[in-house]
Amino acid sequence: MTDTAEFPPDDEHEPSSGQSGWLTPEEIAAARAQLPLVYVDAVPVRVDESGDVVSVGLLLRATPLGSMTRALVSGRVLYHERVRDALLRHIEKDLGPVALPQIPASPQPFTVAEYFPTPGITPFHDPRQHAISLAYVVPVNGDCRPQQNALDLAWLTPEEACSDTVQAEMVNGQGTLVRQAMAHVGRLD
Amino acid sequence: MTDTAEFPPDDEHEPSSGQSGWLTPEEIAAARAQLPLVYVDAVPVRVDESGDVVSVGLLLRATPLGSMTRALVSGRVLYHERVRDALLRHIEKDLGPVALPQIPASPQPFTVAEYFPTPGITPFHDPRQHAISLAYVVPVNGDCRPQQNALDLAWLTPEEACSDTVQAEMVNGQGTLVRQAMAHVGRLD
Amino acid sequence: MTDTAEFPPDDEHEPSSGQSGWLTPEEIAAARAQLPLVYVDAVPVRVDESGDVVSVGLLLRATPLGSMTRALVSGRVLYHERVRDALLRHIEKDLGPVALPQIPASPQPFTVAEYFPTPGITPFHDPRQHAISLAYVVPVNGDCRPQQNALDLAWLTPEEACSDTVQAEMVNGQGTLVRQAMAHVGRLD
Amino acid sequence: MTDTAEFPPDDEHEPSSGQSGWLTPEEIAAARAQLPLVYVDAVPVRVDESGDVVSVGLLLRATPLGSMTRALVSGRVLYHERVRDALLRHIEKDLGPVALPQIPASPQPFTVAEYFPTPGITPFHDPRQHAISLAYVVPVNGDCRPQQNALDLAWLTPEEACSDTVQAEMVNGQGTLVRQAMAHVGRLD
Repeated sequence: MTDTAEFPPDDEHEPSSGQSGWLTPEEIAAARAQLPLVYVDAVPVRVDESGDVVSVGLLLRATPLGSMTRALVSGRVLYHERVRDALLRHIEKDLGPVALPQIPASPQPFTVAEYFPTPGITPFHDPRQHAISLAYVVPVNGDCRPQQNALDLAWLTPEEACSDTVQAEMVNGQGTLVRQAMAHVGRLD
Repeated sequence: MTDTAEFPPDDEHEPSSGQSGWLTPEEIAAARAQLPLVYVDAVPVRVDESGDVVSVGLLLRATPLGSMTRALVSGRVLYHERVRDALLRHIEKDLGPVALPQIPASPQPFTVAEYFPTPGITPFHDPRQHAISLAYVVPVNGDCRPQQNALDLAWLTPEEACSDTVQAEMVNGQGTLVRQAMAHVGRLD
Repeated sequence: MTDTAEFPPDDEHEPSSGQSGWLTPEEIAAARAQLPLVYVDAVPVRVDESGDVVSVGLLLRATPLGSMTRALVSGRVLYHERVRDALLRHIEKDLGPVALPQIPASPQPFTVAEYFPTPGITPFHDPRQHAISLAYVVPVNGDCRPQQNALDLAWLTPEEACSDTVQAEMVNGQGTLVRQAMAHVGRLD
Repeated sequence: MTDTAEFPPDDEHEPSSGQSGWLTPEEIAAARAQLPLVYVDAVPVRVDESGDVVSVGLLLRATPLGSMTRALVSGRVLYHERVRDALLRHIEKDLGPVALPQIPASPQPFTVAEYFPTPGITPFHDPRQHAISLAYVVPVNGDCRPQQNALDLAWLTPEEACSDTVQAEMVNGQGTLVRQAMAHVGRLD
């Protein structure tokens, strides 16, 4: 999923760890090594009046090693959080508060991306954990401003987003997920 | 589908029948008796910020015999028209020009409703024809004003729309289609 | 989900808890109180040659209090297990080794059932945990023999499975899930 | 869709044209120029025990001009025929009577392929007509023997079926449809 640590900001939303029976960060890390975690992946798109996808929004991020990667909006579903609320929260976190996303009415994802810590089992890989991610195409109407650790948000045509150049800039199989999304909306060439 | 004749207004969009090789209204009627026609059904909904369905819009129509029925937005896909354009056209035709529908990015319908001229083959029935209808849930954000032959547009909660009372006011299986739509969006009790 | 403890048999499949960094049963229980768990729900069906659903298989189970409930095939996805393998494993566990299930080719579930420990947030409820369950309709061709703690497997028609009587025998929202499944396959009346 | 005339064999299934009000072949041809026709496209696949797609079946056909093309199972839905019955009929017609296809329980297609007589509107094109095709991935378990005008049926891996070489051998956008199908089943690289 993303190269940046996703847990700390999330954990601010969680009850304080002083609570009786609550896991410490070390225990969370241990759980992470033994349970699949639930994620959501959102493919932000601009659509025209007929719903046809005009462009795909990809975040530009710098890796700890200084190279640039493009990424989807992605993050964990918290305890006692609905999938649709997690989707909204991560989109607002990454695209800002006025992106005006159209969260899907149906919980049916277009696919389930299984990120394994071992590469090669599926097209998806996450060295940190086993994440099972519900993937949605999410039209956004408003003004998107990359937040936090994203350097930029670029809107590419479906053709550009599926091109070899852009695919090479995506990691952990998210390039494949973009192409699956474009196939789903009828925009894979 | 609808109780009102749907062909005449549509046919205004088609090339004139004087064109060489073009079917006359009689021939269209004959074709209708021998080919399945392609339709779209739209279930108009209001959603909250998280995409959760808050209410369902049903048209109120008077039948030729004077009784009242509730109906979905429904109509034929024309020759050389994309499904998404047919969906937009029928929503604007029935809900007015400022309904601001969010036409789905994906052509994947939540179901295919097969309206047979013979009752009982599927839950759907259309005495006039065999229609194969691609069904979509369509959030609308704008101001909806029933047009043409609809008397009113009522916004009901998912629970009300699935209630026995409202179901009894729908014909040709559209009540079932509403319940299938609510099942799809996770709002069937 | 099920009323029976689902973790112990699963944990036999997991690496031994002596392993460095591995959670103890107490820690697993704690994780369970702080992370949503990934589940699969399978609706076993018999289909005819055209794929039309003829009957739905429901397990009959005795609760600790001695009452009878009907249940779907349901269980957790393990660490490093693919969703499709979890689906196969739970079907074999509940229906026996020669059920010959047709595991779906696509990972796209027909819905995502969110079981919350708090009732009323969604139609689904699990007092033990927050489980996010990917739900699939799974045709089975072979001989099904209820295993383990199930007393029987009953094949009901879609109409029977959606009837008030049978719905009242299902718990935690699984009755709703059966009706959503029947809506998805076009067999909700 | 296919390069071979698809209507004559179909029409054998239809009531005789002597029937009152029945269209003559000329009138059918005229209707074809003014109404979108309903088709089904089936992507035949072999799956393993877990439902994972192992290979894709493509028909090898000779065009009237003598070149070779690869094609999906494809054909029209007849008047008063259910979509699932059309799917079964076309698979048996093209793959033989013992292919043992697993027709999907749900009528929800993975996509809707809109074949326009004008190229470029969608990725799909059919010079003869406007066809709206419901597309399904169909696992087949039995022995497949190409029938009628197909010279051969080749089983390719998902990677081979999506390769540039094989894609170049498909016409009218069916190569895109194969890639959309592989995206849907999680086998698009």
